[in-house]
Amino acid sequence: MRPPIEQAFGTGFAGLIGIELQSLAEDEVRVRFAVRNELKQPAGLVDGGVYATVAENISSVATWWAHREQGLMAMGLSNHTSFLRPVTAGHVDAEARARHRGRTTWVWEVDFLDDLRRLCALSRVTVAVRDPRGGPPAQPR
Amino acid sequence: MRPPIEQAFGTGFAGLIGIELQSLAEDEVRVRFAVRNELKQPAGLVDGGVYATVAENISSVATWWAHREQGLMAMGLSNHTSFLRPVTAGHVDAEARARHRGRTTWVWEVDFLDDLRRLCALSRVTVAVRDPRGGPPAQPR
Amino acid sequence: MRPPIEQAFGTGFAGLIGIELQSLAEDEVRVRFAVRNELKQPAGLVDGGVYATVAENISSVATWWAHREQGLMAMGLSNHTSFLRPVTAGHVDAEARARHRGRTTWVWEVDFLDDLRRLCALSRVTVAVRDPRGGPPAQPR
Amino acid sequence: MRPPIEQAFGTGFAGLIGIELQSLAEDEVRVRFAVRNELKQPAGLVDGGVYATVAENISSVATWWAHREQGLMAMGLSNHTSFLRPVTAGHVDAEARARHRGRTTWVWEVDFLDDLRRLCALSRVTVAVRDPRGGPPAQPR
Repeated sequence: MRPPIEQAFGTGFAGLIGIELQSLAEDEVRVRFAVRNELKQPAGLVDGGVYATVAENISSVATWWAHREQGLMAMGLSNHTSFLRPVTAGHVDAEARARHRGRTTWVWEVDFLDDLRRLCALSRVTVAVRDPRGGPPAQPR
Repeated sequence: MRPPIEQAFGTGFAGLIGIELQSLAEDEVRVRFAVRNELKQPAGLVDGGVYATVAENISSVATWWAHREQGLMAMGLSNHTSFLRPVTAGHVDAEARARHRGRTTWVWEVDFLDDLRRLCALSRVTVAVRDPRGGPPAQPR
Repeated sequence: MRPPIEQAFGTGFAGLIGIELQSLAEDEVRVRFAVRNELKQPAGLVDGGVYATVAENISSVATWWAHREQGLMAMGLSNHTSFLRPVTAGHVDAEARARHRGRTTWVWEVDFLDDLRRLCALSRVTVAVRDPRGGPPAQPR
Repeated sequence: MRPPIEQAFGTGFAGLIGIELQSLAEDEVRVRFAVRNELKQPAGLVDGGVYATVAENISSVATWWAHREQGLMAMGLSNHTSFLRPVTAGHVDAEARARHRGRTTWVWEVDFLDDLRRLCALSRVTVAVRDPRGGPPAQPR
């Protein structure tokens, strides 16, 4: 029996962050995490790697989820995260939108917001859709 | 007493990865980490967030280190990581080179290599150099 | 006498593209260009460099415009453009929003849409705000 | 009769820049262009779009060239260019290396150097390899 999709978010390395799923649609995912000391870099701010990891996780899990019936897999190709405003406490909301849903690649943009709804980081993640037997999905006939 | 620079790498969130410093110069840093289950995404590959986090950590710590005598701090502005080849076991070597060392920003490129020295991921990290009293370093007179 | 802002868009290298300003606010700019053979790459699609050039032009001109009263200048730091859907004819609309307006950097996101309002390309442009006498703007007192 | 590869560089939109091919191998391409007023933005520096356009052109043409015998085409997926040092005169050398040559994507890094061999810009270009009949190249058997 396959586990429900809710359990796929925030597993593996991203599971160290403590992601809570807020809402899920095929082209939009919202998650939240609480700022803890373990997520900070030495100067006391949320580590840039945390934003990149959250964006990578939700974009690739959501892409995989949208293709699961066809037996396809999803693999991150690229992750570009910009850090705009330091966060030191509270929660961070991540809101991901699928901006492009092509046959071989999906492109997501993720906004990260602090408790005052200020934009703290931005991410663009490109995810490849692949056939696990090797290569990209077959061309539709 | 200030801790030695070696201890600044792989602390905070990046400390969850288990980074081992291999060599350090002002414009080049090499670290290594071992692949463990905790670093993987659900499909069994090293999570993309791990590469981004390692690149962010070594680039920003090394930039801070180069400016520590002047009392300046370093903050990541942007991190763009491309995932080229899945890694499932062994070690990953990260080799970072400072490609630009400007007054207000440093730009690093990081190569990630598997045990066979194949390129697995690439990262470009832009780090801002800032005066902790507010803003960028003063203009030299 | 300073030329009106409208004339600053699409000058210099970007002037080769033929940009028409549609609307301008401090945090949002819309321009349009017509697809011509001179803007294509050898395979007949609008060249990726065209999207990058338009995004660079409108982001940096709009950032400069917002700081012109203070005598500051704006310089592009980074431009990341993703190509989602080929365009071969008609017009392309570029819609730029300032996502971050910091003291030393502004970050813009630009959507490119074809005549059917389909997303064709995405760009994120980071622009540095600098004092022309050297360095970033002075810290407010 | 197919034109020689040398003529494919710097055609289309990139032809407005005036690119001179210096050397060509499957995984390394070097070109040069002269700084002219037409390539500058309003403040008198080489426009960021020029670097992005040159990187896009040489990466995608060289990827296409490496696959031409198999009848495959190459399309840019993403172009991320960082601007490190303004150039106002002389020549710019662009040196592109293929860092990843996969079945479905190639990744290039391009260094831009001024007449004093100082690094002025950096680009990472991801190029998709596609079968013109639709979709990515067939999986080898």
